[in-house]
Amino acid sequence: MNERIERLRGELGELGAATFLVTNSVNVRYLTGFDSSNAALLVSGDRLVVATDGRYVEAARGLGGLEVHAADRDVLGWLGDRLGALAEGPVAFEADTVTVAGHQALSANGASLLPASGVVLRLRSVKDDGELDAIRRAGRITTAAYERLTREPFVGRTEAAVAWSMEQALREEGADALAFPVIVASGPNSALPHHHPGQREIGGGETVIVDAGALVDGYCADCTRTFATGPLPEELRQAYALCRSAQENALAAVRAGATARDLDAIARGEIQASGLAPVVHGLGHGVGLEVHELPVLRPTSTDVLAAGSVVTIEPGVYLAGRGGVRIEDLVVVGEEGPEVLTTFTKDLLTLH
Amino acid sequence: MNERIERLRGELGELGAATFLVTNSVNVRYLTGFDSSNAALLVSGDRLVVATDGRYVEAARGLGGLEVHAADRDVLGWLGDRLGALAEGPVAFEADTVTVAGHQALSANGASLLPASGVVLRLRSVKDDGELDAIRRAGRITTAAYERLTREPFVGRTEAAVAWSMEQALREEGADALAFPVIVASGPNSALPHHHPGQREIGGGETVIVDAGALVDGYCADCTRTFATGPLPEELRQAYALCRSAQENALAAVRAGATARDLDAIARGEIQASGLAPVVHGLGHGVGLEVHELPVLRPTSTDVLAAGSVVTIEPGVYLAGRGGVRIEDLVVVGEEGPEVLTTFTKDLLTLH
Repeated sequence: MNERIERLRGELGELGAATFLVTNSVNVRYLTGFDSSNAALLVSGDRLVVATDGRYVEAARGLGGLEVHAADRDVLGWLGDRLGALAEGPVAFEADTVTVAGHQALSANGASLLPASGVVLRLRSVKDDGELDAIRRAGRITTAAYERLTREPFVGRTEAAVAWSMEQALREEGADALAFPVIVASGPNSALPHHHPGQREIGGGETVIVDAGALVDGYCADCTRTFATGPLPEELRQAYALCRSAQENALAAVRAGATARDLDAIARGEIQASGLAPVVHGLGHGVGLEVHELPVLRPTSTDVLAAGSVVTIEPGVYLAGRGGVRIEDLVVVGEEGPEVLTTFTKDLLTLH
Repeated sequence: MNERIERLRGELGELGAATFLVTNSVNVRYLTGFDSSNAALLVSGDRLVVATDGRYVEAARGLGGLEVHAADRDVLGWLGDRLGALAEGPVAFEADTVTVAGHQALSANGASLLPASGVVLRLRSVKDDGELDAIRRAGRITTAAYERLTREPFVGRTEAAVAWSMEQALREEGADALAFPVIVASGPNSALPHHHPGQREIGGGETVIVDAGALVDGYCADCTRTFATGPLPEELRQAYALCRSAQENALAAVRAGATARDLDAIARGEIQASGLAPVVHGLGHGVGLEVHELPVLRPTSTDVLAAGSVVTIEPGVYLAGRGGVRIEDLVVVGEEGPEVLTTFTKDLLTLH
């Protein structure tokens, strides 16, 4: 905890601020271990102040090392009346979290406020050993859940029923919760990258995409596999081979210093060159306390991969109206290459 | 859908706006049925414009009746460059949802923007027949899940294991998902209103609070019962009797025209008069697409109950370090009284 706070304190100079106000609740949890839905954390060179409402005051005090104040439910309104006493200015705040109404409340007494973006998110994008340990466990549990799921037949069951089986498998393997709602997309639905599992009955000879991940000690995993439910039409077999090749080629290029844009281009270029399908989403994203974090692996990204970042590599090949394939691994970025955390097979499995 | 849009259009005059910009994704879903994590809806007297990113464009077009524009991932940045063409000003926006960074992007070209608070939330606080039907089904499923859960023993199992049983029961009874993570708080933990279920093993002669609800067709239920795991100490038996009496007295006063403050005072006054425990949270809250909505039932609330609102009635009696009791029903506000949707018994059940 202290090292994370020190890293944030190290950003104050460049921001021209004496204090950093953290209101994103995931960022508050990252920096202090304090888990609430309603808190403001003020980090200055020599103080660490938390304002939260009555529901969470005892929990905050129990952590130690924090100067805890009992605020109203409207924490920013409460803080706006006391910012001068609690924080030296100027105060940098999270412009992607504080709402217009919150900003109005904060500035009610003329505090000097500086908008800042992505500061704590960038700190979060490189994981420490404890975080990597939790993510590795989440990856192992997710892999074990895929092993369990693929012992069951798919044909004749609804997408929603298979999604529920996957949720149970994740929980029974040890997940505290899901990192995100399980996606099961079958047949034509598998051509829709953001399909919600519904009452469609899975048929034979289709592709079925399953995208799921465990949440363990607050950290997420994220993994996708695509299955066949019998012999596939030629174009879907081609799509599978293409997606797997693009995924493995991009994966092999993951290492510290690689640019997000270059990695995205490896898979994107291979899929585009095939002429089989357009590329409709980026290659991947960082994963940690949230399932979508920095770095972002897209053509417009300026991120460069650092050792200790955790990212997904997940190209997709989608044939509108006919079916789709997505294959996704979760990996730790290393100096020399990736450490793959989702080790379930990428061979095309047929599940009847 | 059209009636909801018409109700919002009816607010434009009082707001002094020609267009209302909706960016809260639940509000977008409420008004149009369009379900995405990234959309902006512009409602004016004669247009209904949606801007969303490529992942959701086809889904938005499929709904019909919307003028759909494919935007960047940064929808507000995209909109800031085009607001003049897409919307007549002044444009009212949701000041509790739009962030400072989003506002900066929106106003990049000098648009006239008016902050507004709670406008769509107030529309959502009175449910139509279709909504009530979904919430009734969510209530029935939640009741059935309590029936199922209470056939199992509690003693010797962890809170987390009982929470998982409740989650499975809700899903097996037909919930699409949970309305919120199940709370199971046992022994001293039951004195903490916001306890997360953990590895504590449930013992004999304790109170165990279970707070859970189904999500059905997008609508939430919310219900709490408190159980005994053997004969309780006298003070916990008193706490149960007090909580039940306060809950039933407040419940009996629910009707259209009652004030949130008066309802809260009924239970609060009874608990305070007993001298047994302080009152640490409000009486309840509205429920709908989200599990916490308007109206708010607290001493500081100025809300008045309307027929067709759905609220919880959930007083708690918490004895620090020793145990607690909370009893919560979900009810539809009627002209003459409440329609209780969570009909599982409030008699104190003992589960060994």
